[in-house]
Amino acid sequence: MMSAGMETRSMGAVMAGIEAPVVIPSKPKHNLVSRQAKATDTVVQVGPVALGGPRFVVIAGPCSVESPEQMIATARAVKDSGATILRGGAFKPRTSPYSFQGMGEDGLTLLALAREVTGLPVVTEVMDSEDLAVVAAYADMIQIGARNVQNFSLLKKLGRVNQPILLKRGLMTTIDEFLMSAEYILAAGNPQVVLCERGIRTFETATRNTLDLSAVCVLKERTHLPVIVDPSHAVGARRFVAPLARAAMAVGADGVMVEVHCSPESALCDGDQSLCPSDFAHMMDELVVMGPSLHRAL
Amino acid sequence: MMSAGMETRSMGAVMAGIEAPVVIPSKPKHNLVSRQAKATDTVVQVGPVALGGPRFVVIAGPCSVESPEQMIATARAVKDSGATILRGGAFKPRTSPYSFQGMGEDGLTLLALAREVTGLPVVTEVMDSEDLAVVAAYADMIQIGARNVQNFSLLKKLGRVNQPILLKRGLMTTIDEFLMSAEYILAAGNPQVVLCERGIRTFETATRNTLDLSAVCVLKERTHLPVIVDPSHAVGARRFVAPLARAAMAVGADGVMVEVHCSPESALCDGDQSLCPSDFAHMMDELVVMGPSLHRAL
Amino acid sequence: MMSAGMETRSMGAVMAGIEAPVVIPSKPKHNLVSRQAKATDTVVQVGPVALGGPRFVVIAGPCSVESPEQMIATARAVKDSGATILRGGAFKPRTSPYSFQGMGEDGLTLLALAREVTGLPVVTEVMDSEDLAVVAAYADMIQIGARNVQNFSLLKKLGRVNQPILLKRGLMTTIDEFLMSAEYILAAGNPQVVLCERGIRTFETATRNTLDLSAVCVLKERTHLPVIVDPSHAVGARRFVAPLARAAMAVGADGVMVEVHCSPESALCDGDQSLCPSDFAHMMDELVVMGPSLHRAL
Amino acid sequence: MMSAGMETRSMGAVMAGIEAPVVIPSKPKHNLVSRQAKATDTVVQVGPVALGGPRFVVIAGPCSVESPEQMIATARAVKDSGATILRGGAFKPRTSPYSFQGMGEDGLTLLALAREVTGLPVVTEVMDSEDLAVVAAYADMIQIGARNVQNFSLLKKLGRVNQPILLKRGLMTTIDEFLMSAEYILAAGNPQVVLCERGIRTFETATRNTLDLSAVCVLKERTHLPVIVDPSHAVGARRFVAPLARAAMAVGADGVMVEVHCSPESALCDGDQSLCPSDFAHMMDELVVMGPSLHRAL
Repeated sequence: MMSAGMETRSMGAVMAGIEAPVVIPSKPKHNLVSRQAKATDTVVQVGPVALGGPRFVVIAGPCSVESPEQMIATARAVKDSGATILRGGAFKPRTSPYSFQGMGEDGLTLLALAREVTGLPVVTEVMDSEDLAVVAAYADMIQIGARNVQNFSLLKKLGRVNQPILLKRGLMTTIDEFLMSAEYILAAGNPQVVLCERGIRTFETATRNTLDLSAVCVLKERTHLPVIVDPSHAVGARRFVAPLARAAMAVGADGVMVEVHCSPESALCDGDQSLCPSDFAHMMDELVVMGPSLHRAL
Repeated sequence: MMSAGMETRSMGAVMAGIEAPVVIPSKPKHNLVSRQAKATDTVVQVGPVALGGPRFVVIAGPCSVESPEQMIATARAVKDSGATILRGGAFKPRTSPYSFQGMGEDGLTLLALAREVTGLPVVTEVMDSEDLAVVAAYADMIQIGARNVQNFSLLKKLGRVNQPILLKRGLMTTIDEFLMSAEYILAAGNPQVVLCERGIRTFETATRNTLDLSAVCVLKERTHLPVIVDPSHAVGARRFVAPLARAAMAVGADGVMVEVHCSPESALCDGDQSLCPSDFAHMMDELVVMGPSLHRAL
Repeated sequence: MMSAGMETRSMGAVMAGIEAPVVIPSKPKHNLVSRQAKATDTVVQVGPVALGGPRFVVIAGPCSVESPEQMIATARAVKDSGATILRGGAFKPRTSPYSFQGMGEDGLTLLALAREVTGLPVVTEVMDSEDLAVVAAYADMIQIGARNVQNFSLLKKLGRVNQPILLKRGLMTTIDEFLMSAEYILAAGNPQVVLCERGIRTFETATRNTLDLSAVCVLKERTHLPVIVDPSHAVGARRFVAPLARAAMAVGADGVMVEVHCSPESALCDGDQSLCPSDFAHMMDELVVMGPSLHRAL
Repeated sequence: MMSAGMETRSMGAVMAGIEAPVVIPSKPKHNLVSRQAKATDTVVQVGPVALGGPRFVVIAGPCSVESPEQMIATARAVKDSGATILRGGAFKPRTSPYSFQGMGEDGLTLLALAREVTGLPVVTEVMDSEDLAVVAAYADMIQIGARNVQNFSLLKKLGRVNQPILLKRGLMTTIDEFLMSAEYILAAGNPQVVLCERGIRTFETATRNTLDLSAVCVLKERTHLPVIVDPSHAVGARRFVAPLARAAMAVGADGVMVEVHCSPESALCDGDQSLCPSDFAHMMDELVVMGPSLHRAL
């Protein structure tokens, strides 16, 4: 049974919004993303979940949608442990053209199925403006990946979509540039943006990237938008995900997004950094215990 | 008068190629970009200009197309000094949504006009798959900017275009990733790719980015594709462009791309790093003198 | 009244140890710092304080020793709030030769005075092998700063000192290199080493450096040595110190070192990143509340 | 036969200079290293060789002094090909305590022997202030390695030595910090400083470090001190040394320092980046041919 407000949108309606020409108004006195423009925290509603409010939100799910069985099993597991938003990639940005590129629209239908089964709203990535209408028709929140954080044409079009956007920081994006990418979306008309720190590229190779938790402090000071953290992609090794999720809560993030797979050793993508359901349950227990000391409930 | 082979393509014909579904074949024994797959240097033909052969190619022009007067004056000046390809941006990736975003298709028509006046083939950037057909209809070589180097959807579509592609390295793209981005284009069917080193992002702030000339050596060893260098964007200050262009020639690059503006102080974009015509002429004189000692003619 | 074991050492005795020739034995099967060589956590004793055991240790004090009043007032304040080790610099590494270079041996005597008044053991930095004997005579723990992490001559001499060493990671030091620097000290005979993550240099300029909390996870996995975090130097702005100290506890560090000054606005060095006593007290309160949820007491 | 001015100095005389207290005067109006303080290029005399004048200077020799045979053979080879200063390490900074640490003073005597045989002045590294007197007694130019670029105690002592200093940039030293490290030496009384760019640490791993040739342009603009380039350590692979040495000349450096070993495959240190004598001869031929086009003779 689907929750109210989570039905799949009509693609025609979405297209109409996207295809209208995007006009960016002239520069306001203060950037729209800034605390000067809006002092109070923005709360972004993703289905029944409020992101940016008092609750610490955990988004979980597999890197890629692979099959109905994998998607349903993982969705049920993360829901049972307390995750409130489901993630899963249907269009996958891969360094090599020969790697698995995702299931495309078939993956989106499996996400919708998992949403129907669990009632969890879903977030999934769009990689290209020509796929935006179809992604928007299925997703409750649309993710822009790190490699597209300065794909300005796509950002402008997201300003025409009436859905929350999860914008991931690029590996090379300064905090100022990151905020300007969000500004593209707000300036084009969509105020529902959630920022996600997911590790930056540095000289250190012991971890996949370097998670920049100071950035959360800086972002919370400069912008009213919610800020979450993705420790899975940052660190690239599942045994470090839980401590970094705890650190994300401690530093003041509004939530985390972590990769969970019902069977990580057989994952088609990023298995090394995916938690199995029992490790995820353990991580959630730790966050639940820590929460009250930080005035955060899950 | 236009040179043969440089007429504007019919957009309908281009669209047909782009809209066909892109199928990436399975992984070959050696990546198509590698020296293992092809030992001899690839020469990419851009109108009458051969890139990757014995001649050192200089691409020059303004950052942005701004007006007929600016475009024609700059094009004539760079041609007089020996540049053989004209650059100019019509779609501009800008960090801020409130900055000048380029003239769009109007800019492309001015580029075509400058080509008609000077006979120089033109290179210009595409930022989004939905603009590809119109850019392909005007350009002799299509540029992918640093921020789109891992826009994999766009790269696949470039594999369907029958035109040379100038692929710029991203600010945080490793050499291996850069080559895999080129592999997307080759795997999708287009072997005409030119690689461009344009500076990487490091901790150093005295220059805009850090030009990585060692990368030219590594690329020339690993791939058969031509490699050029863009010192203007790397360094961000016009007084350092000529010495770095000389260094690019000395290290073994196949050419350089430099920003020249007939009136840099009034440029709408990147004026600080644009050479004026007389500085450009002086740089060209130096390269002409150095060339023979490196077995490179201009 | 001084605590037992904290009297100032005779410089003659220290010199005798330091001046003996340092002979590094041949490579053992496993590096001495590794978990393979020693599986159980090393606990380093600093006066009465155990670093690396169940208690989360807070080291606090001013960047520089400036005067008896400043030193005593700050020492009392940090002790009152629960810090158990006092920090203060007498020899200061400064980028500019014209900046305040520290009080030298006069500063060490003020540290000893603050120790006598409060009973807190003290940690202070040595910058050069020729100052090692005098620093060792006063300090309970000797700090090696980020810029000397690969001053291998100095590291070898620290192997001859019978005192704990606080080794800070360099701005450019990989985790592997950091562990090899510690290995110099252990191989030369001193097993009492505490590692300190203090931020690495990246492209991001919104914070002074980028605190690498993932490194804590990696270090705790690879080495048995205690690992602490210095958020003050990493972030360079006092308002971000408390959240990052919380994150350090959450990620599994054995303690933190923070800069506190009785009057930050008049500090001779690093005032912008120093907490005032009331902010420090507030940070300590937060850590005390969080501790039990992480099985850590202060 | 030794050239005039290259005899080994009396250690007593050197010690007297070093042991005097170093007093840094108060900040001058302009930093001593700056073009504002001194507009004309400083020429540093190393034995008979002028560094910073019209001639492009090539410093060559092995990474480490290993034996009389290796040292003499290599010194003769580099002299025959046109090198005018000989390099060789006696005190070696090594990441691991178990790696070969250099021959120490025995290595210095072999350097003096090679100088006697070839007449070439020698440059060698000092790692610690306690070794400064002995190094200064043998060397014609004293090198400070990348890891000691902010060893401020050592820098101050170099201000008391009456010998040229070769100061290498650190792997994460900004250009501003690098100049301030040189300022320590000048402020303490020694104006004979040569700066050396040797690669910075970035995310790119295809080369050992990233050679920052733009830094040469920036340094030549900001300071009157000579600037040379060390491509061997930057790139870490011998086949890329010659093209980067050419690029260093083209960009405006005053010289290069390259590693040459009479038998690279048996080198105790850095063999992979050392040129054999015939490759070095070939590199020198290329520089001789290029020189006139850049108004530089060798």
